[in-house]
Amino acid sequence: MEIQFLGTGAGVPGRLRNVSSIALKLLDEINEIWLFDCGEGTQHQILKTAVRPRKIKKIFITHLHGDHIFGLPGLLSSRAFQGGDDELMIFGPKGIQQFVTVCLKISDSHLKYPITFVEISEAGLIYDSGTFQVYCDFLDHRIESIGYRVVEKNLPGELQAAKLKEAGIPSGPLYGRIKRGETVELPDGRRIDGRDYIGPEKKGRIVTILGDTRKHPNSVKLAKDADVLVHESTFRQDEAALAKSYYHATTKQAAEVAKQAGAKRLFLTHISARYIGKEALKLEKEAQSVFKQSTIVNDLDSFDIPFKK
Amino acid sequence: MEIQFLGTGAGVPGRLRNVSSIALKLLDEINEIWLFDCGEGTQHQILKTAVRPRKIKKIFITHLHGDHIFGLPGLLSSRAFQGGDDELMIFGPKGIQQFVTVCLKISDSHLKYPITFVEISEAGLIYDSGTFQVYCDFLDHRIESIGYRVVEKNLPGELQAAKLKEAGIPSGPLYGRIKRGETVELPDGRRIDGRDYIGPEKKGRIVTILGDTRKHPNSVKLAKDADVLVHESTFRQDEAALAKSYYHATTKQAAEVAKQAGAKRLFLTHISARYIGKEALKLEKEAQSVFKQSTIVNDLDSFDIPFKK
Repeated sequence: MEIQFLGTGAGVPGRLRNVSSIALKLLDEINEIWLFDCGEGTQHQILKTAVRPRKIKKIFITHLHGDHIFGLPGLLSSRAFQGGDDELMIFGPKGIQQFVTVCLKISDSHLKYPITFVEISEAGLIYDSGTFQVYCDFLDHRIESIGYRVVEKNLPGELQAAKLKEAGIPSGPLYGRIKRGETVELPDGRRIDGRDYIGPEKKGRIVTILGDTRKHPNSVKLAKDADVLVHESTFRQDEAALAKSYYHATTKQAAEVAKQAGAKRLFLTHISARYIGKEALKLEKEAQSVFKQSTIVNDLDSFDIPFKK
Repeated sequence: MEIQFLGTGAGVPGRLRNVSSIALKLLDEINEIWLFDCGEGTQHQILKTAVRPRKIKKIFITHLHGDHIFGLPGLLSSRAFQGGDDELMIFGPKGIQQFVTVCLKISDSHLKYPITFVEISEAGLIYDSGTFQVYCDFLDHRIESIGYRVVEKNLPGELQAAKLKEAGIPSGPLYGRIKRGETVELPDGRRIDGRDYIGPEKKGRIVTILGDTRKHPNSVKLAKDADVLVHESTFRQDEAALAKSYYHATTKQAAEVAKQAGAKRLFLTHISARYIGKEALKLEKEAQSVFKQSTIVNDLDSFDIPFKK
């Protein structure tokens, strides 16, 4: 599991940061890539990465502002052009279906794959792949903005080979049955319970990606115990009044959400073009003073998301 | 007068060529920039140029395929963000108004300037600024595609200072009246006709920019005596059958149009990503074998458009 930031800027594209998009790579887990938001030029950013558009199977839109959706029609068209035939699901606020449908219709774009739209009208579970469940809730922005919480199912524990060896249990096809937790009879007549030889369940990972928002209690709920929280950080900590009036958050507010939620790591994005170089690093320091594991991300930054130890 | 190619690729953005857009810079003439088409990422390309979005006062859309319009909503939003307050006119096929209106409405984008839409339903004069007239006609593409012909008004001739001197006419405020072609009385009693001391009218320039199309007689009409013709060139000369079936043109067909029209210079654009490096140069040679003044353009290439000599 890996997260790659395709666009980390706010509002309009700049020389250093494109507008919003994030790729959550679930290739090892389910051979899919999920996209969160798709600002204009997202497909151009993808050209600079290893992401293949046909691997994108789900797109989650946090809100309908242009810097989060204007890249969608182009990406959908290119995905068809590049051999994407599999169904695509698009989740987002009411209106996303009309936007996509009108853009594709007027441009006479005929995709070769079906799209299923899920327009979100209430908080809760919106998708379950078996391996991953996605929950959502509403945030506090000028227009309806959604936060997503992706929860990986716990993984079964590993077979404890050393313990089996110690008990004198011979390796072979029996190991497969033991690993599945079955009770098996050994050649020497002993009956053993497979569950005694399996390590503890591996806790599934949690990734929380929020749309633009002021600081809000729902953000804390969505990010509860998350391995990764992605939070916007449009303003400096001394600009809280500005942030409030523009329905955005400061560095410090984002860090407080991460801290209150007990998240493991915070990625700050949606960075205004006003903050470059040292100024951007200052934003990071402000957040770190509240929540140590804070990182200001740049376009194309990519991070592995490891299991909790 | 200058023409800059912002995107010269076909269909989908590639590493070397973005999708279609052209800036016609009329800064010295009327302090305006006119845009022809606006594929996704046009505003990103503009960031690499001296073009200021607020100087863009007219946008001409040739046809509604995504690679020619998907950058429009983002550019319009950024233009507002970057201090564009002046009216913008958008010309294009029926449907362009709905596309822009729906995108701006769903994304809750409130521009600070008015947009006047001109949806084109017949060939002929569609705009007259006084200095420039714009004519259009329909081409031959899978969907309705338009060609534009921008005609600069002839400029008055220059005052022939040497001839005046020779005739012993003293310089001074009289020169202004002579330049305006008035009849003036000299201090020595002579009456002279100003028109006798003005050089010939300077022929206004003609720039013809065509949408995607097969080779078509209307292209020749639109490009008649043009100083610059911009024609698509999606296929090699030996791919005429392919070109026809995809409603596009070959290098040779584009060059034939330029030749038949008596154009001065041909710029070939809408180049498929299949042709890179030497392959693209081959395309240029193919066109040059029919029409010598042919140039395959690259993204961000910029050319002065001089007066005819």
